[in-house]
Amino acid sequence: MPHDRPYSMMTASLVRPVRVLHVSPQGSSSRADVAATEEPLEVRIGGDPFAVIMRTPGADIELAAGFLLAERVILGASDIRGIDRDPHSRNRIDVRILEARARDLTRREGARRRVMMNSSCGLCGRVTIDSLRVEAPEILADWTIPAAVIAALPEALRHEQAVFNETGGLHAAGLFDRSGTLEVMAEDIGRHNAVDKVIGRMLLDDRLPLDQSVLFVSGRTSYEIVQKAYLAGIPVVGAVSAPSSLAVELAGEAGITLLGFVRGSTFNLYSHPRRVAG
Amino acid sequence: MPHDRPYSMMTASLVRPVRVLHVSPQGSSSRADVAATEEPLEVRIGGDPFAVIMRTPGADIELAAGFLLAERVILGASDIRGIDRDPHSRNRIDVRILEARARDLTRREGARRRVMMNSSCGLCGRVTIDSLRVEAPEILADWTIPAAVIAALPEALRHEQAVFNETGGLHAAGLFDRSGTLEVMAEDIGRHNAVDKVIGRMLLDDRLPLDQSVLFVSGRTSYEIVQKAYLAGIPVVGAVSAPSSLAVELAGEAGITLLGFVRGSTFNLYSHPRRVAG
Repeated sequence: MPHDRPYSMMTASLVRPVRVLHVSPQGSSSRADVAATEEPLEVRIGGDPFAVIMRTPGADIELAAGFLLAERVILGASDIRGIDRDPHSRNRIDVRILEARARDLTRREGARRRVMMNSSCGLCGRVTIDSLRVEAPEILADWTIPAAVIAALPEALRHEQAVFNETGGLHAAGLFDRSGTLEVMAEDIGRHNAVDKVIGRMLLDDRLPLDQSVLFVSGRTSYEIVQKAYLAGIPVVGAVSAPSSLAVELAGEAGITLLGFVRGSTFNLYSHPRRVAG
Repeated sequence: MPHDRPYSMMTASLVRPVRVLHVSPQGSSSRADVAATEEPLEVRIGGDPFAVIMRTPGADIELAAGFLLAERVILGASDIRGIDRDPHSRNRIDVRILEARARDLTRREGARRRVMMNSSCGLCGRVTIDSLRVEAPEILADWTIPAAVIAALPEALRHEQAVFNETGGLHAAGLFDRSGTLEVMAEDIGRHNAVDKVIGRMLLDDRLPLDQSVLFVSGRTSYEIVQKAYLAGIPVVGAVSAPSSLAVELAGEAGITLLGFVRGSTFNLYSHPRRVAG
């Protein structure tokens, strides 16, 4: 395929409209905004579920091919007999591979149970959230946190974070109480790991559910981050950067107050603003 | 566990020393620097391999606990009978869980093959790289790319990236030729997905190995990003931000020229500097 100009795989579905409450010391105002689209893609091999990838829709065929190459399910283009989107779901791709590769995969999975992800959820953000809602009740905590306390969270986290400035390479996650006091923090190359570490610490101390806590992370918030907070019972989740569309959707359903772009003295509120005072 | 001060799970192993060649229009100089540590952690349940997590060492017990909570393998602290580090490997944790939870897990895996799994690699960065080296030959491409071309890559990628400025929420990956012309680009909420999309596009066009290409990504480089480039045969990988320790190590072994902090007219070279001219 010759390219006259860069082959860009962008589509309109890269972002979704969201309604935010922008909060500043001067007050708050409702705004139309957008969030990066996040939806699960189920990759099937010869009709069998193989993996679910949280991704931004667009170039799904390419994503499935590149993913299977990196997983060593295929070794090159000639191992692919066909790739098709499920006519009944835009979030499901079926890849037909050479018999020899299929046999390799079966042997490998038998021997070392390699890649396998989640699958019951799978098909769309809606189903993913519904299956999660079965696991955990909506979060109903009714306390409030002052806007000024929220605005101070990034600096409090950075203050404890020894490494970011040195390498630019680590994410941080912190659990704060309602007065903005940092209780536990962790750093990790993986944002989700940093969250697992702080929640794991509290779990080991038998302090779950964390219904008096605020989770604050240094980067963006994805579905996975909000999911972890939800399962730990955390009512308020904030981040220095943007949430994904599915993070916003899940926070709304889960009863979580979701904050983004907490910078300087301003931030955006994406769901359940009742917990923010002032 | 009462906390007089924030409970921080940082340890000295958060970063590793690396040697970099700092390149600017004024010339280049060798510097001592650090990279965020990345190593695989194998989580076992009752002695059976369950998952391998690429993480920054430290708070591994907490990470395992938090991870198993989010995966719904355990529902709370009382489901854990014990968590121990393998006396023979600092990168392996064994979690003993209640019989009832172990039965749930067996039933669930049988029914819907839930959890992700890898395992042959598993135990340390060294072993991970060795097992990958079996899959792919060292990259030997001997062409060069001018430093000025490298310095222009971030802007070229941003120019094509419609969404980042709008949401702050998407990563971009681009494949460039040796003259700095962008051939394919993709955006995604997951950095690794954006890389899979561009490599997948080329795979579907039957253009692998990509031994004339430069992969450039908008964020950081982890082991996983370098691995994907390696398996696609890409000799030069660059990023706007920092690489992890294991990304540096793998790039060195794989014959990949790894660039980081490509900003303004300067960048760092972490491995195989012979491909950068001028």
